[in-house]
Amino acid sequence: MKKEYNDYIIAPDLSNELLTDIVTIYDEKNIKRKIKVIEEKPLTIFLNDQEIITAMSVGDYPKYLALGFLYNQRVIFDKEDIKSVDFEEDLNVVVVRTKKPTNYEVKAQKKIKTSGCAMGTIFGDIFDYFEKIKLPNCLVKSTDIFDLIKKINLTKSLYLDAGAIHGCILCDFKNPLVYMEDVGRHNAVDKVAGWIFENEIDVSNKILYTTGRLTSEMIIKTVMMGIPILISRSGFTAWGAKLAIQSNLTLLGRTKGNRFSCLSGKKRIIFHK
Amino acid sequence: MKKEYNDYIIAPDLSNELLTDIVTIYDEKNIKRKIKVIEEKPLTIFLNDQEIITAMSVGDYPKYLALGFLYNQRVIFDKEDIKSVDFEEDLNVVVVRTKKPTNYEVKAQKKIKTSGCAMGTIFGDIFDYFEKIKLPNCLVKSTDIFDLIKKINLTKSLYLDAGAIHGCILCDFKNPLVYMEDVGRHNAVDKVAGWIFENEIDVSNKILYTTGRLTSEMIIKTVMMGIPILISRSGFTAWGAKLAIQSNLTLLGRTKGNRFSCLSGKKRIIFHK
Repeated sequence: MKKEYNDYIIAPDLSNELLTDIVTIYDEKNIKRKIKVIEEKPLTIFLNDQEIITAMSVGDYPKYLALGFLYNQRVIFDKEDIKSVDFEEDLNVVVVRTKKPTNYEVKAQKKIKTSGCAMGTIFGDIFDYFEKIKLPNCLVKSTDIFDLIKKINLTKSLYLDAGAIHGCILCDFKNPLVYMEDVGRHNAVDKVAGWIFENEIDVSNKILYTTGRLTSEMIIKTVMMGIPILISRSGFTAWGAKLAIQSNLTLLGRTKGNRFSCLSGKKRIIFHK
Repeated sequence: MKKEYNDYIIAPDLSNELLTDIVTIYDEKNIKRKIKVIEEKPLTIFLNDQEIITAMSVGDYPKYLALGFLYNQRVIFDKEDIKSVDFEEDLNVVVVRTKKPTNYEVKAQKKIKTSGCAMGTIFGDIFDYFEKIKLPNCLVKSTDIFDLIKKINLTKSLYLDAGAIHGCILCDFKNPLVYMEDVGRHNAVDKVAGWIFENEIDVSNKILYTTGRLTSEMIIKTVMMGIPILISRSGFTAWGAKLAIQSNLTLLGRTKGNRFSCLSGKKRIIFHK
């Protein structure tokens, strides 16, 4: 019989009624039913006086989402840089204020003279940081990874409750710690990044697990966070694979039960004989 | 025994070696294997002299992707507006040239005076169009939908071959016609839109099928294309549901075998007794 796993620092909050809605559907026999669906709301991130981006989000942890997004884009670097973070619930707006002007504001001024989009500019910059990151060495047993995945699969999630949502889970080598979910998997990972940023967590002995595919974006964000191991039940893209090899990230895809495909960084895995 | 369905105008091209790559992985027993993964390459769309966006794409049908993206954003409206579409393969750039300046160029000039991102500006505009669209009436039998899904499931796809990719299929009421796949489901639907735009297809009697979730973005794009019926094997988000009801789109989610959940527009369905 299945047991539930719920020993988290932050677990999916199925009691938060703001995260789901009930809608009426008709099934294939034209019978009326009610089903639960995931909320999806625009959240606009401001940095000081500058509107940065509007993300479609399930709506929880807006401050972590804003901080994590800005941190993963290397617009903010350290908790000390932050003056305040305010969430205006009525407006779906988060305002991050910094003590000094950031590189984004400098870039944005430059941008007006060029034709490129701001996000593109930042994206270009990211690779300068990405290439310099040295991910830490560590060792994890494949059997511990199997146990970890088992615990994640025994967690009650919004996904199991209402579907149409991705999960991203920060783990140590024995246990899942922080389980974030969002309609966009980039938001779920940014919320984890925001939690790490806010709590100044050492990630050198951490694993990131995602329910989504291992695309370039996921690899870049994981490396930017400095996490040495990324695991997914889903598959790889070719550019994701290249970036993982280049950055020496330990990348495990297609994990199911006691099976996985280790695409890069296998020196961090102790294989079970 | 399963039969293959391949009677398409455009089918997934599994013989195109540019769309996948072979990578080496180690399985959980530390045994070396080769697996196929999906390509993921940046494609930058230019409109006349203006850089619009860089999309991560599997790389096929770049011209359809560019045209469909600009059409779904209502930057171009008609095939007659287009002077030329050029794909520079070495640079991964598509340049769409129009006979006259577009509203994007006018918006972009305005934008420099504001703090908002260009994509946000366009996104805001989209709702003005969205609210005015009247989707056509039509009638489709639920049994025909079941047959359609069976044919789609019997199609050899990049997804079955290499995973980590979404599909988007334009169908009439009897058969799937154009099957596009991409690492981003928004790209897959934009490629379908580009094909419709280029070939001036009447979509009033068409169905769009997506393997992805029914988020607001998918609903908006389908309605912008004027397609009255959207089907997915995946689930709904709350905002997607609201937009589908508002636009009177026939939205079927969680389709599996002979089952579905019709969230809106059920007047277009003839239910099987």
